Amino acid sequence: MYIDGLQYSNWNDEIFDQFAQAGLYAVHVTIAYHESFRETVLNLEAWNVRFEQYPDRLLLGESADDVRRAEREGRTAIFFGFQNPSPIEDDIGLIEVVHKLGVRFMQLSYNNQSLLATGCYEANDPGLTRFGRQAVAEMNRVGLAIDMSHSAERSTLEAIELSARPITISHANPASWEPALRNKSDAVLTALSESGGILGFSTYPHHLRNKSDCTLASFCEMIAGTAERYGVEMLAIGSDLCQGQPDSIVEWMRNGRWTRTRDFGEGSAAAPGFPPQPVFFRDSTGFAQLDAGLGAVGFDSAEVAAILGNNWLRFFEQSFGPGRTT
Amino acid sequence: MYIDGLQYSNWNDEIFDQFAQAGLYAVHVTIAYHESFRETVLNLEAWNVRFEQYPDRLLLGESADDVRRAEREGRTAIFFGFQNPSPIEDDIGLIEVVHKLGVRFMQLSYNNQSLLATGCYEANDPGLTRFGRQAVAEMNRVGLAIDMSHSAERSTLEAIELSARPITISHANPASWEPALRNKSDAVLTALSESGGILGFSTYPHHLRNKSDCTLASFCEMIAGTAERYGVEMLAIGSDLCQGQPDSIVEWMRNGRWTRTRDFGEGSAAAPGFPPQPVFFRDSTGFAQLDAGLGAVGFDSAEVAAILGNNWLRFFEQSFGPGRTT
Repeated sequence: MYIDGLQYSNWNDEIFDQFAQAGLYAVHVTIAYHESFRETVLNLEAWNVRFEQYPDRLLLGESADDVRRAEREGRTAIFFGFQNPSPIEDDIGLIEVVHKLGVRFMQLSYNNQSLLATGCYEANDPGLTRFGRQAVAEMNRVGLAIDMSHSAERSTLEAIELSARPITISHANPASWEPALRNKSDAVLTALSESGGILGFSTYPHHLRNKSDCTLASFCEMIAGTAERYGVEMLAIGSDLCQGQPDSIVEWMRNGRWTRTRDFGEGSAAAPGFPPQPVFFRDSTGFAQLDAGLGAVGFDSAEVAAILGNNWLRFFEQSFGPGRTT
Repeated sequence: MYIDGLQYSNWNDEIFDQFAQAGLYAVHVTIAYHESFRETVLNLEAWNVRFEQYPDRLLLGESADDVRRAEREGRTAIFFGFQNPSPIEDDIGLIEVVHKLGVRFMQLSYNNQSLLATGCYEANDPGLTRFGRQAVAEMNRVGLAIDMSHSAERSTLEAIELSARPITISHANPASWEPALRNKSDAVLTALSESGGILGFSTYPHHLRNKSDCTLASFCEMIAGTAERYGVEMLAIGSDLCQGQPDSIVEWMRNGRWTRTRDFGEGSAAAPGFPPQPVFFRDSTGFAQLDAGLGAVGFDSAEVAAILGNNWLRFFEQSFGPGRTT
């Protein structure tokens, strides 16, 4: 059983067929980058239509049990997440509301400063804000997992420290392997592993050594090195697959509505669009290649199963139910 | 002619009569603390009703000429402002839209971190955000004045430095007189004066020496000291008068929707409500007392006129028209 901790594809039946073909029983899908609450509800409505259209392929994932059910029935459980806290606007009460609507992950910031935390492209990171500290407690209470994939260093360390429940960095790689702004320092990965959190390795080319030319062997050796340093329990996959998306989507991700100039994010004026995926992960069926590749670098079958699915399943089990009220 | 650089009263005909009685020909009124764009439009609609109900008392102020017209006609020009950038949400295009709707002032943050800048109650202030830097340029372009009354120190200094046009601190006093978090340091006041900005002295008790017991003489001596240090050109009044507001309003200002606990802001659990105004400024007719008090501490009549109205008029003249595109 495989689980992918982050995808944002241009959803269609071919992609859902690939889920089944890949044996992918759960996918965390992004439903908001810069959307307001109301706009996010429109995205939920679009997923309601997909659940209705593809009853043999999909089901809404709200708990670890939904993954087991999906596996039994040969379907894929779709877990909703936000890459930015924009859907909760300035309203802490919306945390419980979005959880009720099925949302299970929320990044405290995307690339810029949010009302809660700092993004990795800001020049300075003051750590969690007053609202951010309140939001962490409320997310802990209702069972909305904290994701710091796009957040800046100090904010990430403070979220790990302040959260009473393990958090995730659902899609990023170690900066020691590829020094991208979005990849994570040893300090962050150490704190994440010590707190029982989860790192989803990303296949997005800007996070990879040699970008689109990254090889399966290099990627799996990086995973082996990370396992040696932090243990296998923290490791999972968050492919960051954006299959079939037009370049207008990566422009929206980077620019939202906040700038009158054009921000290129991890790209550049010369290469503003989505980069091509590495050959070993062009779509969800790449999980089979990862399975083989992880075996080839020395992981045993239990470890491979943990990295490609069971660690996420454990995290889902721990994270999405009500927490103790503090 | 008197101008008040900040009021947020519980508007009624008695208050509008006091404007006329006081010779107050322009007032900057707050129309948003935590409101979204849509909610702010509701507040504009409420003002449209007031303009219709009180055509002999009020007119919409959009330029310095509207103040001169108000003076000629014995009315009061109402200038709209936001104490938080919440009405522009995450959308830089809304800056031009709100200016078109008549808004002339926007604070880059209230007490907390905003998407643009840091508020004075946050533990850390990283300065203007990426969106904040874009917003300053856009506000300069369309003629929306930057107000940093509730912002933290570094964000305020950066706004003064980055803005191509003078900015305001519409309602605050020098921290050297009363060391409230909301009052301003010498570094900020020096930068403000060197950049041609305006400070509106506040009569809100939490910003006053001896709070509600502050005397007219103490307040006017503080103004005299500020004039000696930074010159008269920077000085004006932003009374921060919240006449007739129930305590539920100060709770809304402080707590918005961001916290599940109760924040007391400048108050305390023992004194959570609005404090009583000092005797010399219970309502707008207090301008006459300020006029006498400023004369008593040695200002000549031209200086008194500058502080109580003409400095604001000059700022309005410079600030609300289109700026040079950078």
